[in-house]
Amino acid sequence: MQKIDVAILGATGMVGQRFIQLLQEHPWFRIAALTGSERTAGRSYGESCRWLLDGEMPASLRDMAVLGSEAELNVPLVFSALPSSAAGPIELRLAAAGHVVCSNASNYRMEPDVPLLIPEVNPEHLGLIEVQRKRRGWRGAIVTNPNCTSTPITMAFRPLLDAFGLRKALVVSMQALSGAGYPGVASYDAMDNVVPYIGGEEPKVESEPQKMLGTLADEGIVPASFATSAHCNRVPVLEGHLECVSVELERKASLDEVIAALRGFQALPQELRLPSAPPQPIIVRDEPDRPQTRRDRDEGRGMATVVGRVRPCSLFDYKFVALAHNTIRGAAGGSILNAELMLAQGIL
Amino acid sequence: MQKIDVAILGATGMVGQRFIQLLQEHPWFRIAALTGSERTAGRSYGESCRWLLDGEMPASLRDMAVLGSEAELNVPLVFSALPSSAAGPIELRLAAAGHVVCSNASNYRMEPDVPLLIPEVNPEHLGLIEVQRKRRGWRGAIVTNPNCTSTPITMAFRPLLDAFGLRKALVVSMQALSGAGYPGVASYDAMDNVVPYIGGEEPKVESEPQKMLGTLADEGIVPASFATSAHCNRVPVLEGHLECVSVELERKASLDEVIAALRGFQALPQELRLPSAPPQPIIVRDEPDRPQTRRDRDEGRGMATVVGRVRPCSLFDYKFVALAHNTIRGAAGGSILNAELMLAQGIL
Amino acid sequence: MQKIDVAILGATGMVGQRFIQLLQEHPWFRIAALTGSERTAGRSYGESCRWLLDGEMPASLRDMAVLGSEAELNVPLVFSALPSSAAGPIELRLAAAGHVVCSNASNYRMEPDVPLLIPEVNPEHLGLIEVQRKRRGWRGAIVTNPNCTSTPITMAFRPLLDAFGLRKALVVSMQALSGAGYPGVASYDAMDNVVPYIGGEEPKVESEPQKMLGTLADEGIVPASFATSAHCNRVPVLEGHLECVSVELERKASLDEVIAALRGFQALPQELRLPSAPPQPIIVRDEPDRPQTRRDRDEGRGMATVVGRVRPCSLFDYKFVALAHNTIRGAAGGSILNAELMLAQGIL
Amino acid sequence: MQKIDVAILGATGMVGQRFIQLLQEHPWFRIAALTGSERTAGRSYGESCRWLLDGEMPASLRDMAVLGSEAELNVPLVFSALPSSAAGPIELRLAAAGHVVCSNASNYRMEPDVPLLIPEVNPEHLGLIEVQRKRRGWRGAIVTNPNCTSTPITMAFRPLLDAFGLRKALVVSMQALSGAGYPGVASYDAMDNVVPYIGGEEPKVESEPQKMLGTLADEGIVPASFATSAHCNRVPVLEGHLECVSVELERKASLDEVIAALRGFQALPQELRLPSAPPQPIIVRDEPDRPQTRRDRDEGRGMATVVGRVRPCSLFDYKFVALAHNTIRGAAGGSILNAELMLAQGIL
Repeated sequence: MQKIDVAILGATGMVGQRFIQLLQEHPWFRIAALTGSERTAGRSYGESCRWLLDGEMPASLRDMAVLGSEAELNVPLVFSALPSSAAGPIELRLAAAGHVVCSNASNYRMEPDVPLLIPEVNPEHLGLIEVQRKRRGWRGAIVTNPNCTSTPITMAFRPLLDAFGLRKALVVSMQALSGAGYPGVASYDAMDNVVPYIGGEEPKVESEPQKMLGTLADEGIVPASFATSAHCNRVPVLEGHLECVSVELERKASLDEVIAALRGFQALPQELRLPSAPPQPIIVRDEPDRPQTRRDRDEGRGMATVVGRVRPCSLFDYKFVALAHNTIRGAAGGSILNAELMLAQGIL
Repeated sequence: MQKIDVAILGATGMVGQRFIQLLQEHPWFRIAALTGSERTAGRSYGESCRWLLDGEMPASLRDMAVLGSEAELNVPLVFSALPSSAAGPIELRLAAAGHVVCSNASNYRMEPDVPLLIPEVNPEHLGLIEVQRKRRGWRGAIVTNPNCTSTPITMAFRPLLDAFGLRKALVVSMQALSGAGYPGVASYDAMDNVVPYIGGEEPKVESEPQKMLGTLADEGIVPASFATSAHCNRVPVLEGHLECVSVELERKASLDEVIAALRGFQALPQELRLPSAPPQPIIVRDEPDRPQTRRDRDEGRGMATVVGRVRPCSLFDYKFVALAHNTIRGAAGGSILNAELMLAQGIL
Repeated sequence: MQKIDVAILGATGMVGQRFIQLLQEHPWFRIAALTGSERTAGRSYGESCRWLLDGEMPASLRDMAVLGSEAELNVPLVFSALPSSAAGPIELRLAAAGHVVCSNASNYRMEPDVPLLIPEVNPEHLGLIEVQRKRRGWRGAIVTNPNCTSTPITMAFRPLLDAFGLRKALVVSMQALSGAGYPGVASYDAMDNVVPYIGGEEPKVESEPQKMLGTLADEGIVPASFATSAHCNRVPVLEGHLECVSVELERKASLDEVIAALRGFQALPQELRLPSAPPQPIIVRDEPDRPQTRRDRDEGRGMATVVGRVRPCSLFDYKFVALAHNTIRGAAGGSILNAELMLAQGIL
Repeated sequence: MQKIDVAILGATGMVGQRFIQLLQEHPWFRIAALTGSERTAGRSYGESCRWLLDGEMPASLRDMAVLGSEAELNVPLVFSALPSSAAGPIELRLAAAGHVVCSNASNYRMEPDVPLLIPEVNPEHLGLIEVQRKRRGWRGAIVTNPNCTSTPITMAFRPLLDAFGLRKALVVSMQALSGAGYPGVASYDAMDNVVPYIGGEEPKVESEPQKMLGTLADEGIVPASFATSAHCNRVPVLEGHLECVSVELERKASLDEVIAALRGFQALPQELRLPSAPPQPIIVRDEPDRPQTRRDRDEGRGMATVVGRVRPCSLFDYKFVALAHNTIRGAAGGSILNAELMLAQGIL
């Protein structure tokens, strides 16, 4: 199979670098273009980017030119790691020009005709693309992946909702520093500290899961009807968002049934053997003290959701802990899996 | 006023050292005896203790002998920093011998005739001492302070319960490393990690507040009837337990009323001007990102509870963040304040 | 005594806030003016500054206006916490206008007619002010304090140089995050990491001590002749620069003599009982594992230098560890002590 | 090729787990036996070991029995991760019984007839085995790898010594927490702190390199004659020992020559393509701020030494920074590479 050329928008930032890292040896996609800010455009990637991830910048990209955000991109597929302050008009223009844009930005996530996609959770929402193309009159598409904090809980909610229904969820997150981008959180704010606030995060966590777990109807998505309350915190860890969750189900379920539903979760990306799909979408650990952020965030090459401490809750029905890698599954890796699904489904 | 001689049990550990630090310049109490383990007994404090807190071991204690746990103590008041594995029989023996034991251990907290005391919350529970003395036939007493995670939430619940009633509370803690004692959590487990489990902690947080907020009746304490669910986590901070709380009230209350109740909370230790009482028992901060563990844990010399982010909760009525210093207010300082109240009330 | 009005330049940054904190209850100085950047000038301090240090911004300053850097300052004494990129012309203008400027910036440290001052080390260098005033034709003055990494080693070198002569010093620093200002080091660069490079730092550490330990002659300072090599590293600690030092002395000295020289060091600020002077300028610890950054940085309210592990070096004569608080002794506190000395000496 | 059965002594500790991790997919060796302490012997590995490294314990070992230290081992090759307090008699007994013991313990490192081996540095020292066998009258062997702090500097010294001679080296280490084993350093000692002392470390760093860089003569190793002074520090990073080094050479060399010697270093393990040998033994980075502990410790799957900041030193000739992964290259990985060399050389 010939690889598909892709562009990465915002390639010099934290998430842009993750896209590059994950696409280095990708069997289906090939990095053909990189864009940066006004400041970096026109220089090589090696000159304009300080590599933040472990190890060295991939040698093959050192000499690739960084394009401006207005550049014509001669690729069918575009991954956007743009900040939401910049993403809006750029992504629109590219979709209108016929590109498929897999965006990590929050701008269009809640638009009625834009899929907010986790391939294991709501692959059928790709049906919105037809609606989107008709309504917007373009041949391209915008497909988004959710906020990094919405991701692990939505993954865990899918089998619970299917098996038992879901009425309420209270979520308290302990989020990694990398989620704030780079330079992001100042070290003087981060060390030996918890900051119990992340701007704009809680509303996302309280609304994105409902859209993803909603049903695709003629006129768009009918959101799932459960209610969520979120408390979002920044804790001094590098990568990995860990969340404490209490859920109330629609129907009675035993602890064993709940654990079995989570552990037995099967989904389309695994069936299709998409390259970035983890072998198991949800890993349930039985030890009392797992998942732990550092020890479990890399499961499934950072693409698995690790769940543990499933136990009764005296106020709701059950409580548990869920963890996912925020800049892999919760950002770049999630976007890439979306593109893989689209290619496998013939949409790309 | 002549100072009262006190002993510190378990004086070489993390909480024992906090007792020593806080009692160094205490206006009412004077350290007259220290006890340690079998291993340390018979040596000087300087020889047997590696000082863990900032700065140097107080010079005045270097040459004080460390007594064994079976030693006769010629002091009216005993502070116990013993681990629960050792505290049981030792505290019993001392109370039976006529000492007032202010204990930080969990062993007797839930005993029906033992006060579980926060002076701002339930000073009237000292009435149990009479019951205790009668039932046990001793002239001494055991008075306990709660688990360090129960402390800040119970402090915040007091004014809410009084003003609006309290039906439910969901609590997610992010607890400091020092709460595990010394050596406690291995650094290899702590750094760049969240451990979502602390052995035995959740049941304490789900039961101690109800006892403290219960009413003293003839036959003992009738616990408050609200229900609590707790998720307890260890995060990489040195000191300070920060907790995300969602509460459901008995009666409707506006956000302003809730904030006013917390901020206006007045209590007996402040009225009595007890030496360790913070000027304000609860400090409410208005910034969106406070309290923060490192920046706010030392408020009121580590004795205040700092509350922030009071806001509506879509599942319960309100949610907020509460913080207190776990080895000061949540341990040694809490115990000392208990003793101050007893002295002020003529019980000691 | 009536307090002297002072201004703080660059009052909203990390070092500016330390000045404010340290001057809050100062017996001799009173904060009368604050300056900020173009962005903040004209607003109140409460509006323009996010308080970074522990606890709350001092209430008394919330409503004080932040002046622009061009403002006329009606105060005799000015503390400068300006970055070196801005300090140059502003400090010049103020000195020319008759103000005494105690500057933390590096711009004029190595100027031949500007004292680079540590009151315990080279108080006689204040004699340069007369030279400075004559040469520059102004009534004001610029007095500087050294780089935060030069401070603790120069303090330790003073008694060694006096007693034994000093030929060579090799210094490896492990410096705190706060030394980079705010936001300074990104948390993603700091956590679980050592960065073995701090821009511009090593040349300062290799030249400033020689100036300070030089002798005041008619034509200016004749620098001390020992040679220094520095390796500067950023390590993940909040405050406190710890340095490993190997020294070669001019004359043979026993280990006991070296320790005695350090421990017995007496200096003018202690003799004059300057308000910010620590009781002992150098504290020598005997434990094998002290000083430790967190446990010892606050000695003498952050103004002491703590030395430990004094022992023979197989390549030089002796090696030891030195520690000082970088934003107190190494920055704001050092500047304030300089001003105190000038006032005590009748220069201010 | 049929894999060789190996045993791991002390398999439940931090270094023991690294052996297991690194041997999981090893092309030449197969784990056939595990030993533990008295406490764990007789139980399965899954029961007796809490897995500390990232991810899960390898499933294939869960049910393997943990043997006592006195067990007969039916394998030709034994890797010892025993603490030095236990290693002495056990390793002796096994070598006497005919096993080749690749030991990570310090007990026999400086014995005249025991190779202290880094395959890139002194492969010819394996010649000592013949001496050892003759003198001790056994068919087995003890081969040791150096202290984790000696490793990266000795690697860098090899090409410098060969090209220019080496007269003096001053070394200041910033060592990872994992180097202390598990539980090792208490988190309360580690966070926001530097501990400038590691028991017993400095003498090792001041003597092991000389043995390794010595020449094999008839009567044993004649140590290299350069002098070393070491300052060893514990800093809050998880893995990776970073060291600041100043060296004085025998012969003049330009900066370019020094860098070329380091970068061009070729060694036997790379030539033999040993499975654990990194592609390049020494990686020289040109950026001013590299190597950094977290970002560079995994180079060459944790087996490379990364050097940077090579520059003139005003006291010695040159200074630089060297980094290696302490529990991979500096412990388990180093031991495994030793065994690979022995197998390739026909000694095993």
